[in-house]
Amino acid sequence: MPDIRADFWMNEYITPWDIYAHGITKVLAYRRTAFQEMYIVETGAYGKALVLDGKWQSCTGDEFLYHEPLVHPVMLQHGAPQKVLILGGGEGATAREVLRWKTVTRTVMVDIDGDVVESCKQHLPEMHQQCFDDPRLEVVIDDALNVLDRTEDAWDVIISDLSDPIEEGPSFKLFTREYFEKLKGALAPGGAVVVQSGPVGPAEMKLHVRLAHTLDCVYGNARSYTSYVPTYASPWSFVLCADTPVEARPDPEAVDAKLADNVNGSLTMFDGQAFLGMLQLPKHLRQAIAEETQVYTLREPPKFFGKGVVKQTAPTQ
Amino acid sequence: MPDIRADFWMNEYITPWDIYAHGITKVLAYRRTAFQEMYIVETGAYGKALVLDGKWQSCTGDEFLYHEPLVHPVMLQHGAPQKVLILGGGEGATAREVLRWKTVTRTVMVDIDGDVVESCKQHLPEMHQQCFDDPRLEVVIDDALNVLDRTEDAWDVIISDLSDPIEEGPSFKLFTREYFEKLKGALAPGGAVVVQSGPVGPAEMKLHVRLAHTLDCVYGNARSYTSYVPTYASPWSFVLCADTPVEARPDPEAVDAKLADNVNGSLTMFDGQAFLGMLQLPKHLRQAIAEETQVYTLREPPKFFGKGVVKQTAPTQ
Amino acid sequence: MPDIRADFWMNEYITPWDIYAHGITKVLAYRRTAFQEMYIVETGAYGKALVLDGKWQSCTGDEFLYHEPLVHPVMLQHGAPQKVLILGGGEGATAREVLRWKTVTRTVMVDIDGDVVESCKQHLPEMHQQCFDDPRLEVVIDDALNVLDRTEDAWDVIISDLSDPIEEGPSFKLFTREYFEKLKGALAPGGAVVVQSGPVGPAEMKLHVRLAHTLDCVYGNARSYTSYVPTYASPWSFVLCADTPVEARPDPEAVDAKLADNVNGSLTMFDGQAFLGMLQLPKHLRQAIAEETQVYTLREPPKFFGKGVVKQTAPTQ
Amino acid sequence: MPDIRADFWMNEYITPWDIYAHGITKVLAYRRTAFQEMYIVETGAYGKALVLDGKWQSCTGDEFLYHEPLVHPVMLQHGAPQKVLILGGGEGATAREVLRWKTVTRTVMVDIDGDVVESCKQHLPEMHQQCFDDPRLEVVIDDALNVLDRTEDAWDVIISDLSDPIEEGPSFKLFTREYFEKLKGALAPGGAVVVQSGPVGPAEMKLHVRLAHTLDCVYGNARSYTSYVPTYASPWSFVLCADTPVEARPDPEAVDAKLADNVNGSLTMFDGQAFLGMLQLPKHLRQAIAEETQVYTLREPPKFFGKGVVKQTAPTQ
Repeated sequence: MPDIRADFWMNEYITPWDIYAHGITKVLAYRRTAFQEMYIVETGAYGKALVLDGKWQSCTGDEFLYHEPLVHPVMLQHGAPQKVLILGGGEGATAREVLRWKTVTRTVMVDIDGDVVESCKQHLPEMHQQCFDDPRLEVVIDDALNVLDRTEDAWDVIISDLSDPIEEGPSFKLFTREYFEKLKGALAPGGAVVVQSGPVGPAEMKLHVRLAHTLDCVYGNARSYTSYVPTYASPWSFVLCADTPVEARPDPEAVDAKLADNVNGSLTMFDGQAFLGMLQLPKHLRQAIAEETQVYTLREPPKFFGKGVVKQTAPTQ
Repeated sequence: MPDIRADFWMNEYITPWDIYAHGITKVLAYRRTAFQEMYIVETGAYGKALVLDGKWQSCTGDEFLYHEPLVHPVMLQHGAPQKVLILGGGEGATAREVLRWKTVTRTVMVDIDGDVVESCKQHLPEMHQQCFDDPRLEVVIDDALNVLDRTEDAWDVIISDLSDPIEEGPSFKLFTREYFEKLKGALAPGGAVVVQSGPVGPAEMKLHVRLAHTLDCVYGNARSYTSYVPTYASPWSFVLCADTPVEARPDPEAVDAKLADNVNGSLTMFDGQAFLGMLQLPKHLRQAIAEETQVYTLREPPKFFGKGVVKQTAPTQ
Repeated sequence: MPDIRADFWMNEYITPWDIYAHGITKVLAYRRTAFQEMYIVETGAYGKALVLDGKWQSCTGDEFLYHEPLVHPVMLQHGAPQKVLILGGGEGATAREVLRWKTVTRTVMVDIDGDVVESCKQHLPEMHQQCFDDPRLEVVIDDALNVLDRTEDAWDVIISDLSDPIEEGPSFKLFTREYFEKLKGALAPGGAVVVQSGPVGPAEMKLHVRLAHTLDCVYGNARSYTSYVPTYASPWSFVLCADTPVEARPDPEAVDAKLADNVNGSLTMFDGQAFLGMLQLPKHLRQAIAEETQVYTLREPPKFFGKGVVKQTAPTQ
Repeated sequence: MPDIRADFWMNEYITPWDIYAHGITKVLAYRRTAFQEMYIVETGAYGKALVLDGKWQSCTGDEFLYHEPLVHPVMLQHGAPQKVLILGGGEGATAREVLRWKTVTRTVMVDIDGDVVESCKQHLPEMHQQCFDDPRLEVVIDDALNVLDRTEDAWDVIISDLSDPIEEGPSFKLFTREYFEKLKGALAPGGAVVVQSGPVGPAEMKLHVRLAHTLDCVYGNARSYTSYVPTYASPWSFVLCADTPVEARPDPEAVDAKLADNVNGSLTMFDGQAFLGMLQLPKHLRQAIAEETQVYTLREPPKFFGKGVVKQTAPTQ
């Protein structure tokens, strides 16, 4: 019988009645930044994890199940992306996957919190794998909204790797039609966008369903796909958008050939077969997306329950 | 901000350092049976749940994500199953899915614990949907091993819906080569078997990997597939085995046609597209299965960490 | 190293940031009564416990540290009580202690919830010790307020053994000046009252402080004392009130003599020395009581944080 | 209804089935020292806390309920202590109370872990209140055993403020007859010793009972007393030992007069009345001490369950 447990626990509310608690074996870093409270911790079973405002962001034990599916489908959709914009992604793992692509000549990663980025550089080398040293990468510490307003670049690929749009959080505006139109306007011809779009368990899939519909209204061609990331305690979703249709059943061998030509190093979970699987949603989720009629706007933005949202209330006696 | 929480919690150890805690809003039934401690509870977000020896079995809020994938692939593999044997499955939800098939003339469900079956009949109508009244269903309260030794039937389909092979638990013998050979011997020509085979998150996938290899050694044609069931906090796996190869990329439209011909009522999550998706495993999992060399035998059975296994130690001061 | 833990837990919020969680090894009874949700459970370390609306009431492992101090001081204050009124006290343990007194000829126990009383009779014999069979005891199932309004008896002793005055709970009216005046009016000459009055840890002692002041305003002679009950996770308080002053430093040997004359059987924790100790409050608590100026009234009743109060929000999706 | 909770929790096992969980609102310091893992955290309800190896040591919200009772009785017993030895006490709060005594000319505080002492100096000024600057205090970073072997001083008062003697912990040898004899040998004539001696809830009082008996065998005059410290989730005990009998019922006014003459500043909880109360143990605890026949020795040392002991097992997959 295994020996069990820790004394410190990170409790994350998956729903208001369901808590996923991770035992912490070591605190590697703790900071109160200008924007949030950050922990980098060591866990018992899933390696090192980044936690922001009590919300689990990613961990070394299963982040490949999130970051590979986030990046490679949108890169494949474009085919030969040179300029890539990453919104969020402080751990550096999204940039790591982008920079595997030989076609990339310039990638800009915009994160609002420089202290988090610095701490990840120092404590999470497993995540960034030194990609911050790649001269093709520029890190901009700023609000994603500001950067989008200022940018004169036209991007081949934009990756929205933002934290969930919890009600009190900073990112809910970045999950609205207005913002998605701004993203579209920043694309070069043939450009493509991917948006991380939340959990799709039956009790939580509403956010994704409406985001998928909102993005479809903006782009005309939005396709949902999913990956499972155990520490998120729910299957996770993404929406891929482009001018041209996203193929529903890509040929795995063709995908593998494209990856072999364009990508340095070996991916852990992603390949043609995995991608084919991710795109095949279960029936009830496809139906829910097809039947959705509402869109998220600045006037009616998402109010995601979110993990840990409750914590932001200041403790008072 | 949502109001949060319960006072009673069911804490399930997903790993020794990761707890998934479900808030209980009502205890519908509690029994100490001859075999185990049973709760049927109401949860906040996921409906009613059956819990045995502290281990979450299934809940009304997402059981369709487990039971539809458990049953329909093996039925499709056979094509026109008439006689179906279910090992385990006390909630009645597996039998419910089997009995949707018009071809079925007789199904026997073997569960070791009659008290659990009775309690599920009474308290979980959402699960069994009155299928216990179907004259084609016979419920046998006995040890699966005994039934297999005695049965003179030859079965078109056998469904192993047993609880995880935790070390101190009753079912670990039923996850060995010797047992799987017994299952094979009980099949009619053209028969097929499916085995629920545990979680496949990166920290927990070893059980599945070795089971898949063990089954492949016995049947020659074993194919893994997965479904996500949020309350299991991990993607879940199954192995489908038959005399004839299991198709790797079935045509979704052909599957839908077969289902339309043979299945009564409407499935929630399963159809041709969903099935195609389930069969496409991610690269690292396929590799792990391909590289596995050991098999589970009675001498070296699985020792699954299991959820809640720790609880079986009698409380002592 | 001891083996640890349970799968079911009762989580009680001692403060909004401090949870005392008791591992449940068995559910002995569960009922939704007309008034509340009741569990009788077996715990790992503290025996059997009664839990109402998620709030720990008492357990067999340490209830003597609550019930003996609740009852014997007020009985001693009177000297030879014949008629005793108990408000609350569903477990029967308060009545048990009252009936030890040979002088008692009649005691009425008023509890609002007959289902709870019945369940305690059946499942908690360690608590009531068959005192419900004593012909001197009458159990009235009714609201304490109704009984007080109707009673024509004049009582030698009244014991207020009510659950904490949590904001949404049923009992907060029973912790106000108006109610305490009603109690006073129901006393026979020479009568005495005791009120359980909550925790007195530094972060939680306000309720007690104001109750003590309120009772002192009503009776002129109110004296606080405390006992420690480990499963309450805080030292616990009582207020003893009478027409005549309550002695601050009773002679332990005189108390022991009175107990020997009047009480059947042997007490576990209470005797003259223990009583002398209970009456000696620490300096900061005495000062806080002395400095208090506000009283609880029906217009400004207590709003105790309470254990588990949060639970009463109906679960909604 | 108060807003509730934190995302990070410190879970302390009070018994193997009872967890007291404190919500952490901020991590002020974290270190892996040569001896232990240290956190200084901010909690929601009880201020700042020092946690060593997952075991709650003390917090600013209720430490006065521990440190005042630890120090002043032994100082009063001596009457005019000049030289005081403190074993343990890294937070500086024990030294703070000692140095209130005008008679003290020299106090040595021995703590094994200099990193903890430094961190407390920096982050817990509420605890030490600058007493580290008092020229009468010398801090020695060493093992208490070494210091006792070497010391040529004869001490008026020795205060054993060591962490609980958990089985795998470093301090269990310091709770044995052999060690207590060493303490006795280091006393000046008229000297007195106090030992913190663990929780005395009914399920946990065995350690105290046997320690009290062990100390009585060594000194001839050992007297137990208790204080309640809410965050310890149990009433807490101390044993006071001297050559001359410890008064069972000191006169509160005489105590107050002695304190007024000798102590600078104002105590929060301790005075003559509080001390009288602390010395009056409940009957069952006095009986258990009186009936104890075994002593702790190096061959049969205490094996305290201890809070958090389970954590020391190295995490392994």
